[in-house]
Amino acid sequence: MSISSDNPLREDLLSRQVAKPCSLVIFGATGDLTHRKLIPALYNLAADNDLPPGIKVTGFARRDKTDDYWRNELAESNRKNSRSGHDPEVWEEFASNISYHRGNFNDTDAYHSLSRHLDMIDADGSTMHNRLFYLSTAPEFFPIVLENLKEAGLNQSRNGGWTRVIIEKPLGSDLTTAQELNRVLSNTFSEDDTYRIDHYLGKETAQNIMILRFANAIFEPLWRSRFIEQVQITCAEDLGMEGGRGGYYDTAGATRDMVQNHLLQLLCLIAMEPPTDLSADSVRDEKVKVLRSLRRMGPEEVERNIVRAQYTHGEINDESVPGYLQEERIADESKTESYVAMRIFIDNWRWEGTPFYVRMGKRLPKKATEISLHLKSPPNVLFQKLPSIDGSNVLTMRIQPDEGMSVRMLSKLPGNTLQIEPVKMDFHYLSSFGKGSPEAYERLLLDAMAGDATLFARRDEVENAWLFIDAIESAWHEHEQPPPMAEYPAGSWGPPEADQLLAERGHHWREL
Amino acid sequence: MSISSDNPLREDLLSRQVAKPCSLVIFGATGDLTHRKLIPALYNLAADNDLPPGIKVTGFARRDKTDDYWRNELAESNRKNSRSGHDPEVWEEFASNISYHRGNFNDTDAYHSLSRHLDMIDADGSTMHNRLFYLSTAPEFFPIVLENLKEAGLNQSRNGGWTRVIIEKPLGSDLTTAQELNRVLSNTFSEDDTYRIDHYLGKETAQNIMILRFANAIFEPLWRSRFIEQVQITCAEDLGMEGGRGGYYDTAGATRDMVQNHLLQLLCLIAMEPPTDLSADSVRDEKVKVLRSLRRMGPEEVERNIVRAQYTHGEINDESVPGYLQEERIADESKTESYVAMRIFIDNWRWEGTPFYVRMGKRLPKKATEISLHLKSPPNVLFQKLPSIDGSNVLTMRIQPDEGMSVRMLSKLPGNTLQIEPVKMDFHYLSSFGKGSPEAYERLLLDAMAGDATLFARRDEVENAWLFIDAIESAWHEHEQPPPMAEYPAGSWGPPEADQLLAERGHHWREL
Repeated sequence: MSISSDNPLREDLLSRQVAKPCSLVIFGATGDLTHRKLIPALYNLAADNDLPPGIKVTGFARRDKTDDYWRNELAESNRKNSRSGHDPEVWEEFASNISYHRGNFNDTDAYHSLSRHLDMIDADGSTMHNRLFYLSTAPEFFPIVLENLKEAGLNQSRNGGWTRVIIEKPLGSDLTTAQELNRVLSNTFSEDDTYRIDHYLGKETAQNIMILRFANAIFEPLWRSRFIEQVQITCAEDLGMEGGRGGYYDTAGATRDMVQNHLLQLLCLIAMEPPTDLSADSVRDEKVKVLRSLRRMGPEEVERNIVRAQYTHGEINDESVPGYLQEERIADESKTESYVAMRIFIDNWRWEGTPFYVRMGKRLPKKATEISLHLKSPPNVLFQKLPSIDGSNVLTMRIQPDEGMSVRMLSKLPGNTLQIEPVKMDFHYLSSFGKGSPEAYERLLLDAMAGDATLFARRDEVENAWLFIDAIESAWHEHEQPPPMAEYPAGSWGPPEADQLLAERGHHWREL
Repeated sequence: MSISSDNPLREDLLSRQVAKPCSLVIFGATGDLTHRKLIPALYNLAADNDLPPGIKVTGFARRDKTDDYWRNELAESNRKNSRSGHDPEVWEEFASNISYHRGNFNDTDAYHSLSRHLDMIDADGSTMHNRLFYLSTAPEFFPIVLENLKEAGLNQSRNGGWTRVIIEKPLGSDLTTAQELNRVLSNTFSEDDTYRIDHYLGKETAQNIMILRFANAIFEPLWRSRFIEQVQITCAEDLGMEGGRGGYYDTAGATRDMVQNHLLQLLCLIAMEPPTDLSADSVRDEKVKVLRSLRRMGPEEVERNIVRAQYTHGEINDESVPGYLQEERIADESKTESYVAMRIFIDNWRWEGTPFYVRMGKRLPKKATEISLHLKSPPNVLFQKLPSIDGSNVLTMRIQPDEGMSVRMLSKLPGNTLQIEPVKMDFHYLSSFGKGSPEAYERLLLDAMAGDATLFARRDEVENAWLFIDAIESAWHEHEQPPPMAEYPAGSWGPPEADQLLAERGHHWREL
């Protein structure tokens, strides 16, 4: 059922989600993210009539362009990247609110002229003097843009409007740099006005984890170490370092690039206690509690609980591909991992003793992100006496690409003998609802316009995640006897060491 | 996975299920059950190569027929009723082992000549001297057939073979008559050689209840009153009294005809504790414990917890049909119920306080048997605050016709607003296994030939079920102020009084 609109509580809940008109300023307006994600997201919101009226988009970038020239470039990429196609009529209407503002990120004058540009836009009242700055630049420009915004007074709210900032990853490369970035951020905008994007949190299935857990009674009794033997969070990518990915990636690695943010966020959603209410801070308080309960690892624990690896030459989709060290823009003797598998423990009452296996890898056989909770086996009596039966039930949440959920259980094979087979109770978003999910950026942009920070990372989340990750990176890169770098052929499911990591406790990676 | 055959425990378990050659003697050989169910079941077992070699079938009935005449009659009904079609070659091979023996049920000579007939069949050794007597007669002949079998010495095992009896419902019409029948049975055959058929127990999904509960870890923690708000067991039939059903039915009613046996058996499978092992007696011990824990009802409790009703004139499948009292072979002022709905409590540790709603009705909108476990709602916080959301999870087992299982849960509707909708995680036997279930009688005949009584009712099960039912019948028919008879139009889901019964506790019948 949909929530009926004459329901006062619904109003209450949904009011958090009413996006307000504003000027949206994109720094890094000519970049990849703008073209592939942000503009298509805005266009699709407009096409679905979900975009608040009075939205104006201003692109800020270095190159010299006219409004029309940039609009035409955007139209072309929207045609390629929009999930719902490209309707010229909708586009024209939407694009009429787009303008371009040329400027170097470190040119203070450019911010003053931006300020005048925005004042002009505000003049007709349609933006309600709300401003949303979107930092989609290379990370080294984050502090520069923030300081210049402040210098030009653009961080100040005026005329009853609000002023907010959205910032993209990477949010630092370790605790120190993250703290430094957060210091600059908090010098410029209040924490309440700061929206740190983790686009995984905008994905439908990630949002649905909380609903599955807390709107249903069936899962919560099972959701604890007494019943859960192990949890697996896998993010598999088939891509490698093509398209110039190599340069930044080699300075980051799988752990910093994906685990510190996306996968730890998913882990928090799975592991957290029920929040007091659905407010952004109640939810984020619980996530921080999980991050603070992650068992810290010294160099020995890192060696025992974590496998890092690089892919070697291999085949993927019938194509021969180079190894990590042979990719472009990768250092010759790079010690950067393209794969990581971790055994993480959460030292709290709920999860004592349940390993959370988290893995991320490039050049794995396919692209998929899934979470699975593996229940303990039933007692070794009755049907479990049949030793060839792997009796454990598995609850799987598919984050992408085929969003949905399933329960693996054992059932009788129809027939006159007793044969027991695993079957799946299944639920697919697409076939159940007959419509696909919106892109994560659509929801996140709307939420920022609505002032709902639930799906954004708070300062202490980011810093606590780095605290956990830093210990691992330090064991790898600063310890005198760092743990070895394992290898796996491109197109395989990772190194044998990662299988061994699970086999130590009688577990094995679930096939995706 | 199927259980591998080099697995010693499988051998152990399956050896219970190896059917042995035997002479099968059907009393009531020209009856409806023989034609519609027994012969097609045997034929399909033969077609699937599941029938043990050396099976001989002898029909015993009153009318004069040759072997060939009876075989031809059977071939014709097999063509109509066999689930897998009728292959003349398979049929000929199977039918060559069928013979007919004329006799009146109360003619002792006929049993002596049957004995000589069976000795002749046994002579070539193919039956291994095993004999299985199937009592498919009208119930008034049960004691007569049994006593005559004994008089002719046919109840005795000989030459190392076994001798067993299968008996059809009704097993008495109350505790006294059931005890009398059981007394005659136990005078003739040992309890171990007595197989009381409840064909519901032979249905795949009924068999699967135990596997779902005890081969999986995911359900057991929830399977108790702490988490289950209510349980519903519904058996709906669209048929009325057509085809001469009226006569017997009017002496029995929905409660005796369906609840005392089939529905209480399903209730036992749902409610019972895990048995010590999978032996017939361990399982039946647990079922008897449930029956003994059913809260007994005096006349007042019957009035408060049970609704009985008769259908009135109505429409079903666009056809106008008469009311119960207008049907053929129904007494003018009949007080027999064509519908019953009960609120049953099980007074044990597991189920204290959880109502089990059991209903059976004729002339309901469709034919379906389903069991549903309704979980308690999550705490009234977070998403449950939305009062328009009916947040309870429901676990449904569909016994017939579309065998399978589903979990109703709440999920986010894809989109940029928070809309929560019920969705189903689903599992269908047919689409999952790509093959339908065998008929219940196939499994049950094989089990009787194998000496596995797990799916048959034991004497104390039958008697304890009657003890519970007798109190209800007595309140209806012997009490001076019997509770009223409600009414429902044919083609509706029963009387409003049955809805009220659930509404008293804030429940409602699940839509089938």
